[in-house]
Order: sequence, then structure tokens, then C-alpha cells
Amino acid sequence: MLSSSSAQIRTLHSSISHSLSPKIRSYLSKDSTLRARIGSYGFPPTSIRSISSATTTIMASAEEARVPPAIPPPTPPFKIALCQLAVTTDKEKNIAYARHIIEGAAAKGAKLILLFLPYSNDSFPVYAEDIDAGGDASPSTAMLSELSRSLKITIVGGSIPERSGGRLYNTCCVFDTDGTLKAKHRMIHLFDIDIPGKMTFKESKTLTAGETPTIVDTDVGSIGIGICYDIRFQELAAIYAARGAHLICYPGAFNMTTGPLHWELLQRARAADCQLYVATCSPARDPGSSYVAWGHSTLVGPFGEVLATTEHDEAIVISEIDYSLIEQRRTYLPFQTQRRGDLYQLVDVQRLGSTKLVEVEAGGGNVNMAQDMILFSIMIG
Amino acid sequence: MLSSSSAQIRTLHSSISHSLSPKIRSYLSKDSTLRARIGSYGFPPTSIRSISSATTTIMASAEEARVPPAIPPPTPPFKIALCQLAVTTDKEKNIAYARHIIEGAAAKGAKLILLFLPYSNDSFPVYAEDIDAGGDASPSTAMLSELSRSLKITIVGGSIPERSGGRLYNTCCVFDTDGTLKAKHRMIHLFDIDIPGKMTFKESKTLTAGETPTIVDTDVGSIGIGICYDIRFQELAAIYAARGAHLICYPGAFNMTTGPLHWELLQRARAADCQLYVATCSPARDPGSSYVAWGHSTLVGPFGEVLATTEHDEAIVISEIDYSLIEQRRTYLPFQTQRRGDLYQLVDVQRLGSTKLVEVEAGGGNVNMAQDMILFSIMIG
Repeated sequence: MLSSSSAQIRTLHSSISHSLSPKIRSYLSKDSTLRARIGSYGFPPTSIRSISSATTTIMASAEEARVPPAIPPPTPPFKIALCQLAVTTDKEKNIAYARHIIEGAAAKGAKLILLFLPYSNDSFPVYAEDIDAGGDASPSTAMLSELSRSLKITIVGGSIPERSGGRLYNTCCVFDTDGTLKAKHRMIHLFDIDIPGKMTFKESKTLTAGETPTIVDTDVGSIGIGICYDIRFQELAAIYAARGAHLICYPGAFNMTTGPLHWELLQRARAADCQLYVATCSPARDPGSSYVAWGHSTLVGPFGEVLATTEHDEAIVISEIDYSLIEQRRTYLPFQTQRRGDLYQLVDVQRLGSTKLVEVEAGGGNVNMAQDMILFSIMIG
Repeated sequence: MLSSSSAQIRTLHSSISHSLSPKIRSYLSKDSTLRARIGSYGFPPTSIRSISSATTTIMASAEEARVPPAIPPPTPPFKIALCQLAVTTDKEKNIAYARHIIEGAAAKGAKLILLFLPYSNDSFPVYAEDIDAGGDASPSTAMLSELSRSLKITIVGGSIPERSGGRLYNTCCVFDTDGTLKAKHRMIHLFDIDIPGKMTFKESKTLTAGETPTIVDTDVGSIGIGICYDIRFQELAAIYAARGAHLICYPGAFNMTTGPLHWELLQRARAADCQLYVATCSPARDPGSSYVAWGHSTLVGPFGEVLATTEHDEAIVISEIDYSLIEQRRTYLPFQTQRRGDLYQLVDVQRLGSTKLVEVEAGGGNVNMAQDMILFSIMIG
């Protein structure tokens, strides 16, 4: 069936595209925002034939929706600082020290600061903060909020242990230049491993996984967030790219095995495949800790090239980000627009879910479409 | 809606999973192959509630279908040879020379040979062969077939210009140990680039893109094929992994810009993300050619580690492949089973299309499912 009928798909797609019901025409003609949004998904507004309550659920030309929007550089080039800090078991001391380091990085001109706050699976319950309550209940975020406002910088502060509704999350906060907590990413993919007699590490014993990808518009671009193990999942990066991210920040502490094997490789792969910037920030290495971090906080450009990095000691990596390079790279290597949606489709479930489903009745075409399981969705909401 | 209702999805999924109509039970009980296939997709046979002609098209727990099947090593460790050959404009000479090299590699114990046959965008029409006709109409494949049979080896011979139905394709052939042409991959993603005044290279001026991914079971494992630019598209590799590939072979000629930037990075990324072997084979570099190839044919292991490689001169890279490492790596780093299908789903369109759609009527649940756009498909055919 479908395996030998891509031409048929195209014909069908084309036949759908060339006819439009008066109802839809009227709807589209009244709503320019809707037209623009459909256009931004790379799906021509003429692709909707009719709305009905009828049989075929038309799902996703998802790959078309994945073509990242054309990105006007939202800022001139700016400096990012990756603060690879030594972390002690004294939380107050860590916070005071982080404050000192952030002030120093801002003094050097950094407009975006990525830092890794204390992480230890064991100390998570002890140090967990109620971020939503704020104030004294969350001294880490209070400090980050205060500094982002007073220094007029954007701060991505990762791996804050968060307590919420009786659960613990591994959370990364994004503070805007006015001190607002603009976004909160809870680690989506927990690192669970159990090889009897060899290695056991289960974040899920302590933590609850987050329920949503996080991408946020800031003064320094549209930023997607992942925490540590989240970087393993290329689909998350691809979703962020499709939603228009310029940069993905991954605070993370790879270990002494996975660090040398994969830390740089994964950053470069995500950046090269999505053609955007990737920034990572690890804690500095403490060989006496129960979890020894690899270090190597790094900034990678949209060609997958390492722009700045460091070893495992304490360091502030300061480097420049120029978003205009993203469009340039995508023009030179235009594979974001050359995917084969007739062969594979990455569906961004929540983006689909947050939009309005239009069921399409394509007359006689319906039967063929159902038979061939060609499922389009048109995202218009 | 969906964005805040993952728990609801899980509940729904669970409720579907725990009830099974007598009709389906009966169907499953009679068909052990079907049961096995459902199992191999990671989808429990109990997940089908009922078949009806009813309203909700149930599509894809596609991420569950992506969990690669457990892979018993199909062979003991064996040797692969990557033949990085100098290519001249004399086709007959190239074929005779390739024969000589293949015989040499087999004599050194290689059971799988990957080689890159002549490629030049300009010479494509001149040298194109009618592979389906075979014999004198396709001297390259005749030679590869003869050698694979006489030497009892598997040959993956890439970038043969193919003429078929008045069209030209960039094609890679897989020959089994009995000389059978087991699979023919036509390059899916054509490299088209046009930056006015800077660089223009359009494969689509000469070539037609293939219409299907290619994965084939051989004596030396289940092998997915991509040609050159196909390696840019991580989705293709992910599809192969989900279908059970042990190895992906990419014959390809990156150029002197993209080669140093991305050739090794992309191979390592595909191998590490899919946790399987990746082998690439380039022609040797000819600085006088109109298209100067980067070289660097490479074998990468399932940790993304370079196992064997070479520079840009002629070379035969011989290295060992041990498929038992795939399971080991996937046990140590089990992220193939930790994807978040409630957040993203990669749909393998043709695999979906080649299976039988079961529409599921979930009673009162239907309404919620439609509202939430939770679209499962159950692949059983």
C-alpha cells in the first residue's frame, strides 16, 4: 500500500490542496492571524478542503510543521557566560558564591548567564526549594531573580532541587532582565539505570519527571531548556528547533564514564542537526564527591563547532553568540527544509494538542486516505 | 488540554490495555506470528480493545513502536572492509580495479565489504546502468553479484548511477552471499543548494530521489542503507534502529568543506543516538577532480566511538564488528526505552502504512480521546 505509493500521497495531498470549502474560505478570509500561522507551519492555507464532523481524522503534515520559522536575529551579538562552579555541601555558601560569580560575569559584559546550581541525588530532599512560593522558601531563585533585575541580565539557573505538591523535581529556571521567573523546566527524562552487580542509579527513586518541554522568548533569543539526561533525546532538541529556538541550554553533570564518551558529541550533534546554538554548564569536578562530574562546560555554534569550552576545574567561559549565523548556516545547508515527511514525521504532541483539530472530509478521497493511513493534521489554533 | 493531561493519556492507555475483545483475543490466539510481531513493536497484545468501524482512528503509540527489538547477535564477530578506492573516469578500469580490491579484502577475512563506486554528478548520465535488467546492462552489479557468490561475502556497493524508467537514481546495492541482489537503496535526500554567487550544486537537476528507506536482513546482520546526504537526516537512522538495524552503511562523498566539519560528527551522532554500528565509505581524494572528496571512511561502534578510520588516500579499512555490544550498550544506557511518547513521536510512515489499521472503539473513552487528540495506532499486520 503506502510503501509503494508516495506518488499517490503527493497526488492526494495536491488534490486536497487545490480545493477549499466556502466555509473554510470564509473563516480564513476573516482571520489573518490564522492565515499567517498556517503559513508559518509551511502548510498552505488552501490545504483545507472542508470541515465536517466526518470520519477521517486528518493528522499532521508534521514534518512540514518542523521547518523552523525564519529567524530574524532578535539581538545583536552578545556575550554568554557559562559558570562552572565548585559546589560544596553548604547550600548558603554555594548561593553566596554563585552571586559573587554572576556579578563578576555580568561585569565582563555577559548578557546571558548559564549556571549549574548544587546537584546531588542524596541532598535533593534536604535542599529542595518551593520555587513557586518564592522568597525565603526558595533562596536560590530569590538570589537569581534579584541579580537578573539589578544587573539587567538573563539568567538560566539549572538543577535547582524543587519541591512542589509533595514531589521533587530537578528544575531549571529562566529569569528575565526584570527579575521575572519566565520559565521553569523540570527535567523530562530521568536517568534510571540498573545493571545488577555493576551500576545502579535511579533518579526516579527521588524525583518526578517534568511533563512538558520548555522554550521561552527572552531578550537574548528564544531558548529551549533541557537538563542533563534530556540531552540524550534528539527529539526534544528537534522540537525546540521546530518551535523556533535559537539556543538550547543544557545544565548537566555527566559523569566520568559518559562525560568523555558523549558530553561533547551530544552537544555538537544537537547543534549541527538543528543548526542552532547549544550551551552546556556542568559543576566543576570534585573528586571527593559521591558523584564526580565531568565538567567541560561548552558553547557550540550552529555548524556543530565548539566555540568555547573548558576543562574540569572552576571556570567562567565567556563567549559571543551571533544569531545571524543561524540563518546563514541554514541557507548554506538547507536540510531543515528538505526532510521527507512522506517517509517520517516527528510529532510534537503538545504543540499538536494545544492547537485546534480540523477534521477534513475529502469526499471520495476519504476512503483512499483512510486505506493508506495518510493522516494529516492541520494545526490552526 | 493535552499539554496538562499526560496522566490522563496514561490512564487511557492503561484502560485500553486492560481490556480485549473476544474477537481480537481469538485472532491473537490463532496467530503466533502476529503476537510475536506485536511484541516486537513493544506494544502488548492486550492493548487492543475492540475492532469496529467506529469513529476514532487510533494512531500510533509511535514511540513505543520505536523501541528497538531485542537483538540476538545474528553472527559471531566478523570482519568488515571499507574500500576507499581511487576512481578514474574510465569506468571499465574502475570495475576491474574494484574486483581486485574486493578479492584482496575477502582474502583478509572480510565477510562484509562496503565500497564506493564511481560518483560524479556530471558522469552520472553517461555511466548509468540498468540494474534491474542486469547482465551487460549493469556491469558494476554483475561484478558485485559474481564476487559475493564466489567469495561467499556480503557486499554493499554504493553510489552506482542507476537508470530506470527514463530516470536516474543514486543507488546502493546489497548482495547476499549467494550473489542475490537483496536490496537496492535509492538516495532519498538529494543535495540541493543554491546560494547565488557562492555555491550551486543541485543533484535534483540530474537525479530522482528514492521513495523508500532500505533495511535488509543479511548473514552479517540487519543493515540499513543511506547514501551521502541521507546521513544528515537523523530520522532515517532512527527509523532503521526502530526496525531492528544492527548497522547502517552510508557510502558517501562529503566535500572539503562539509567533510572536516561534519563527516565524523554525523556518523558518531547516528551511532551514539541509535546505539548501533555505523560504517561509511568514501572514494579516495583526487585533488584534480571537479568534486574533491574528503575521504575518511570510518567504522563507528554503538557508543559512538571511532573503531577504525583512515585519511584521504586509497585504503582498505578492515575492522571487527561484534553485535553483542549493541545489547550491552543499550542495557548500560537504556534511553531507547525511555523516550517520552507523550511529548514527541517519530512516525515511520511506511511501516505504519504497511501494517493493518485497527480502529478502536473505546466506548465513552472515545470522546475524550478525540478531544485530546490522543491518537494511537496499533500495528498488527
